[in-house]
Amino acid sequence: IMSKGTVVLAYSGGLDTSCILVWLKEQGYDVIAFLANIGQDEDFEAARKKAESLGAKKVFIEDLRSEFVEDFIWPSVQANAVYEDRYLLGTAVARPCIARQQVEIARKEGANFVSHGATGKVKKTRNFTCSLKNIYIFLIPEFYNRFRGRTDLMEYAQKHGIPVPVTPKAPWSMDANLMHISYESGILENPKVRQVLNVFVGSPCLSLSGKHGVGRIDIVENRFIGMKSRGIYETPGGTILLKAHLDIETFTMDKEVRRIKQGLGIKFSELIYNGFWYSPECEFVQHCINKSQENVEGKVQLSVFKGQVYILGRESSKSLYNEELVSMDVQGDYDPCDASGFIRINAVRLREHHRLQGFSSTKQ
Amino acid sequence: IMSKGTVVLAYSGGLDTSCILVWLKEQGYDVIAFLANIGQDEDFEAARKKAESLGAKKVFIEDLRSEFVEDFIWPSVQANAVYEDRYLLGTAVARPCIARQQVEIARKEGANFVSHGATGKVKKTRNFTCSLKNIYIFLIPEFYNRFRGRTDLMEYAQKHGIPVPVTPKAPWSMDANLMHISYESGILENPKVRQVLNVFVGSPCLSLSGKHGVGRIDIVENRFIGMKSRGIYETPGGTILLKAHLDIETFTMDKEVRRIKQGLGIKFSELIYNGFWYSPECEFVQHCINKSQENVEGKVQLSVFKGQVYILGRESSKSLYNEELVSMDVQGDYDPCDASGFIRINAVRLREHHRLQGFSSTKQ
Amino acid sequence: IMSKGTVVLAYSGGLDTSCILVWLKEQGYDVIAFLANIGQDEDFEAARKKAESLGAKKVFIEDLRSEFVEDFIWPSVQANAVYEDRYLLGTAVARPCIARQQVEIARKEGANFVSHGATGKVKKTRNFTCSLKNIYIFLIPEFYNRFRGRTDLMEYAQKHGIPVPVTPKAPWSMDANLMHISYESGILENPKVRQVLNVFVGSPCLSLSGKHGVGRIDIVENRFIGMKSRGIYETPGGTILLKAHLDIETFTMDKEVRRIKQGLGIKFSELIYNGFWYSPECEFVQHCINKSQENVEGKVQLSVFKGQVYILGRESSKSLYNEELVSMDVQGDYDPCDASGFIRINAVRLREHHRLQGFSSTKQ
Amino acid sequence: IMSKGTVVLAYSGGLDTSCILVWLKEQGYDVIAFLANIGQDEDFEAARKKAESLGAKKVFIEDLRSEFVEDFIWPSVQANAVYEDRYLLGTAVARPCIARQQVEIARKEGANFVSHGATGKVKKTRNFTCSLKNIYIFLIPEFYNRFRGRTDLMEYAQKHGIPVPVTPKAPWSMDANLMHISYESGILENPKVRQVLNVFVGSPCLSLSGKHGVGRIDIVENRFIGMKSRGIYETPGGTILLKAHLDIETFTMDKEVRRIKQGLGIKFSELIYNGFWYSPECEFVQHCINKSQENVEGKVQLSVFKGQVYILGRESSKSLYNEELVSMDVQGDYDPCDASGFIRINAVRLREHHRLQGFSSTKQ
Repeated sequence: IMSKGTVVLAYSGGLDTSCILVWLKEQGYDVIAFLANIGQDEDFEAARKKAESLGAKKVFIEDLRSEFVEDFIWPSVQANAVYEDRYLLGTAVARPCIARQQVEIARKEGANFVSHGATGKVKKTRNFTCSLKNIYIFLIPEFYNRFRGRTDLMEYAQKHGIPVPVTPKAPWSMDANLMHISYESGILENPKVRQVLNVFVGSPCLSLSGKHGVGRIDIVENRFIGMKSRGIYETPGGTILLKAHLDIETFTMDKEVRRIKQGLGIKFSELIYNGFWYSPECEFVQHCINKSQENVEGKVQLSVFKGQVYILGRESSKSLYNEELVSMDVQGDYDPCDASGFIRINAVRLREHHRLQGFSSTKQ
Repeated sequence: IMSKGTVVLAYSGGLDTSCILVWLKEQGYDVIAFLANIGQDEDFEAARKKAESLGAKKVFIEDLRSEFVEDFIWPSVQANAVYEDRYLLGTAVARPCIARQQVEIARKEGANFVSHGATGKVKKTRNFTCSLKNIYIFLIPEFYNRFRGRTDLMEYAQKHGIPVPVTPKAPWSMDANLMHISYESGILENPKVRQVLNVFVGSPCLSLSGKHGVGRIDIVENRFIGMKSRGIYETPGGTILLKAHLDIETFTMDKEVRRIKQGLGIKFSELIYNGFWYSPECEFVQHCINKSQENVEGKVQLSVFKGQVYILGRESSKSLYNEELVSMDVQGDYDPCDASGFIRINAVRLREHHRLQGFSSTKQ
Repeated sequence: IMSKGTVVLAYSGGLDTSCILVWLKEQGYDVIAFLANIGQDEDFEAARKKAESLGAKKVFIEDLRSEFVEDFIWPSVQANAVYEDRYLLGTAVARPCIARQQVEIARKEGANFVSHGATGKVKKTRNFTCSLKNIYIFLIPEFYNRFRGRTDLMEYAQKHGIPVPVTPKAPWSMDANLMHISYESGILENPKVRQVLNVFVGSPCLSLSGKHGVGRIDIVENRFIGMKSRGIYETPGGTILLKAHLDIETFTMDKEVRRIKQGLGIKFSELIYNGFWYSPECEFVQHCINKSQENVEGKVQLSVFKGQVYILGRESSKSLYNEELVSMDVQGDYDPCDASGFIRINAVRLREHHRLQGFSSTKQ
Repeated sequence: IMSKGTVVLAYSGGLDTSCILVWLKEQGYDVIAFLANIGQDEDFEAARKKAESLGAKKVFIEDLRSEFVEDFIWPSVQANAVYEDRYLLGTAVARPCIARQQVEIARKEGANFVSHGATGKVKKTRNFTCSLKNIYIFLIPEFYNRFRGRTDLMEYAQKHGIPVPVTPKAPWSMDANLMHISYESGILENPKVRQVLNVFVGSPCLSLSGKHGVGRIDIVENRFIGMKSRGIYETPGGTILLKAHLDIETFTMDKEVRRIKQGLGIKFSELIYNGFWYSPECEFVQHCINKSQENVEGKVQLSVFKGQVYILGRESSKSLYNEELVSMDVQGDYDPCDASGFIRINAVRLREHHRLQGFSSTKQ
């Protein structure tokens, strides 16, 4: 029988991707399993063995932690990337990291397809628009008509000798990496229902801040495809980095550059969230933000205390802060008469506006 | 001797405005003292007596707390107004509230001038560009050449029978109202120096959240006039309101309206900060933001815990959240095939981009 | 045989929609033909007879010219709506006008479906995302697999007694209304090829400006779906209105309001182009723009001369122009000293910037 | 007598700067006259002799035409820089070019001051905020109190042997360079009054397009300082360049990059207009715009015909235009089913919006 080609499957070791692996083989594909280590708490060797036992042609387990931090987390921090004022994009920023390596493996191995474990639901696939050689085989009818829910997967697993988890499934799904943990779906889909406290296990890498509950949020967000969904996120490391960066940035960056850059950062956040990391506009925005960071360096002292990140002080050789200028006790270079002029000129326009509205127009 | 006219002076009861009161009289003005109650912790009656004893023609002490909340804090919360990603504008938003009443008194009393206690330094006056009949007499040379620092004020006070504070002046200045307390200048002008802990006395009105240290920040910000300055702020009530509003807004507002409104909110924040509350553009932006809030209503459950505000859940009759749509277990109205199409169409542009760059352009 | 329901078809009288009408009947639908008069040059009575003879259950020919101008062209002019700096949206702005009436007829007639004549190509359908009860039956495989090109349509027409045009089809397609004429596709798809001169027949309603060739452009634009396409447009009336409006707007609108409104106008243009007229964000933006127009009124004198629209002068009772203030020969309210202060304060920030870069920082 | 220092004066040869030259010497300064050739029609040698005869220590006449085009006009064209939708910034973009050279001469000659010929009115000086060693001596009271109008200048000239123009002064002022000619003030200050036709003499360098009246506008614009003023501009070369660039840019630039860049271009225009060419934000924006231009190259064919610039066609090796994709007659890579999905997903959000508003929510 002739193979339909080789698929590089982003494999997690769980029920879903295990079923997918077997099903893909059933459909006539060769499957290469790929598992990225981006800091999640995982028994990688067990996952390897499972993939092999299920018939994976090859298994790649790769440590992407450094490049995740350097190529994806840093740029997000530099952008002060926050989606819809709250979400620090911990999951969204990991996807292009995984996808890049997956495509790389496909190239090296001569695979024709890449795939991932989103079981026919749109919301998880949104961030893959970027991967350019992706075939969304899990959006094809043969698959989603076959597997309409967890029960179908369980039955399929039992039939094909795929180990079925013995512990009951958590009533939500979880996604963890170096930067954050997210919880969503299941019982969390009811936006009114209070989260079960202590759901947070702490992010694996930054356990101190995790222990303190830094960066925990419960939000409803707007997905790319236009629906609202609820997510609970814990981003201890990311929150600290963001706050520290924000502080040193304002300390060293010109005010007007900052305003322009702030708008670009919001755009960048939307692009990351919507899965457009690998797009010309994202590349462009990232280039611009990079430029803005040239002088953004320094030291921020902060305390993590009772779930809060407090900035205590900052210093930088690139500071634009002028202590002498700001002082209330030193006249310095500053002429109060200039301020009068500044105020009066700013008011020229306001005076005309009020003149039109029938206000008296006495000189200020 | 003929009076030069009547000045309505924003009087605080402190050393500076007491000296100003006396000095203005000395210069030939009649002075009306005006003290606004916007929630600060103050002995208003003592201030009244002091102003009278120093020669104020009249003293107005007015309770502006309700209108401060309704006309100024609410609009800021609706705008999610945050200046430079961090400052909730507690001081900036109080100024137009005070100024409005001050101008109103001037009108009723037939006064020609309004004035305030900024002693010749620009940074405090920035927010007054708005008051249209203001004469910045404290930016005139006669005054600022006379009073070049605290020592001059102390000497003047002693000479003119103005009570001099017996307790040593705090090594920073403080500004408090219903919404927040700010600390700045003095030893805080060194941005590197860690704040003395326990500086926070808690906001007078929202003592619960104040006790928990909600909304404490230490920042360097960009002033309107282009200098950077450091401020330490505690905005317990404002922080809770902002977080709750942000939550219910995302829950009830269309995604794309939200994006546009977010940009307008940033603009609004800058306008408030720069003292342009009473400007055509601020009026315009406020009108637009109002419109966006038509359906923003609901109930947010939150906990204030260890200095953090955690959202626990939300509900609203105007919610755009569709639990059925978002569910991973229900297919509902949602056709996976639509998602394929959406992804492919979004990729049309990306494929052309990569085609140009010499990538292979296999169909997704 | 039971009807599958009633379709209100946007009928043009041409080959395509005639075939569609017949095909829809063949598929079991009742068809109501709807032809909107938005100022195009058309034999409406001939079209009515044709539709009736092809089996339309009812034919509606409605004069929408007034509402097209008032509800769609005016708002676009107020927004200074120009897509990608050049296209005045003459076709895009007509679609929601037609769609609104079509939906209205469907409602009155109890029809279940609306449809239009886009023959399976995405680019024409982009602007219909708005019509909420639309079923895109022409994107369904049965149709687009049946009709893959003009030849299929011609054959089908001959077989079903649909009159086939005797004159050869123009080597491009054309769309005309009160506001503009557009030419695209066919030989124009080659972006390098110079348009055949005298292609312009002049817009039907504004023949004077049309005669002068006002508002002719040849552009490549970005479609919503991410492809670039070429269009040649002639918008004589729209161009004159836009230029006149732009002039009186700047004359009467505050500078800073104008800046904010300019951004909203660009957003509005994109929304119109992408077919989101009936969306919450478009409604929101339109509301904001409306607000900005409160004082935008006056008289603009202009000449249409050799293809150009020249503004000659303007006047308005709402003008914010202050001739006295601007005069170089009158000192007026204007104190040169204020300007010095304004300049110096604006330079505070620049001086700090240069200080950091090692420039000497002598006072200005 | 000791010199107060050396001033590099931007000298035009006219009455104003001649008086200034003499007055500066009178005040005790050494004066270096500097006249930049940026393409204006001028008898440079006559100006040199005049400056020398009036006592200039040195006279520099420098040909800046190449650098004006390369360092200032090109970047503006790349930004599609248009202020307030109409003004192509011909004067504003020349100022930083002149200022740069002026500062350079001051550096080389060891001069302490630079100055220019704005006679005490703010509007002309706005664009000099950038030059960091400027002293606005013409905003100092000694000067503006001395010269309150043209009559004072005429008298002063006669008294000091400065040649007085024999021809009557034009009833407006004019500023010309390679890129444009502007006319303002005088009788033009009445915004209602129609310009005298044939005022245009044609731009010196691009006389063909000038002859055709390309790029003539009569506008009211908002000055930096908040007043509105009227200007009549003729920018033949700039208009052609802008239109050609706009065309090739849309042809070769990704749609979403274009949107972001459009916003940056508007910002850039405001910065140029307000005199912030040499500011960190302008440098930043220029860097970003540069990046966006990487692939913007190609050939645009256009005709200049009856005052209009018509694009006839364009080609580029970097084109993102895909003729096959856009064609209505070729199915190609394009699947109509994708379009259905795209439309439906885009409507998810709209459906929820209408659901809330009580509309029926039948599936599209």
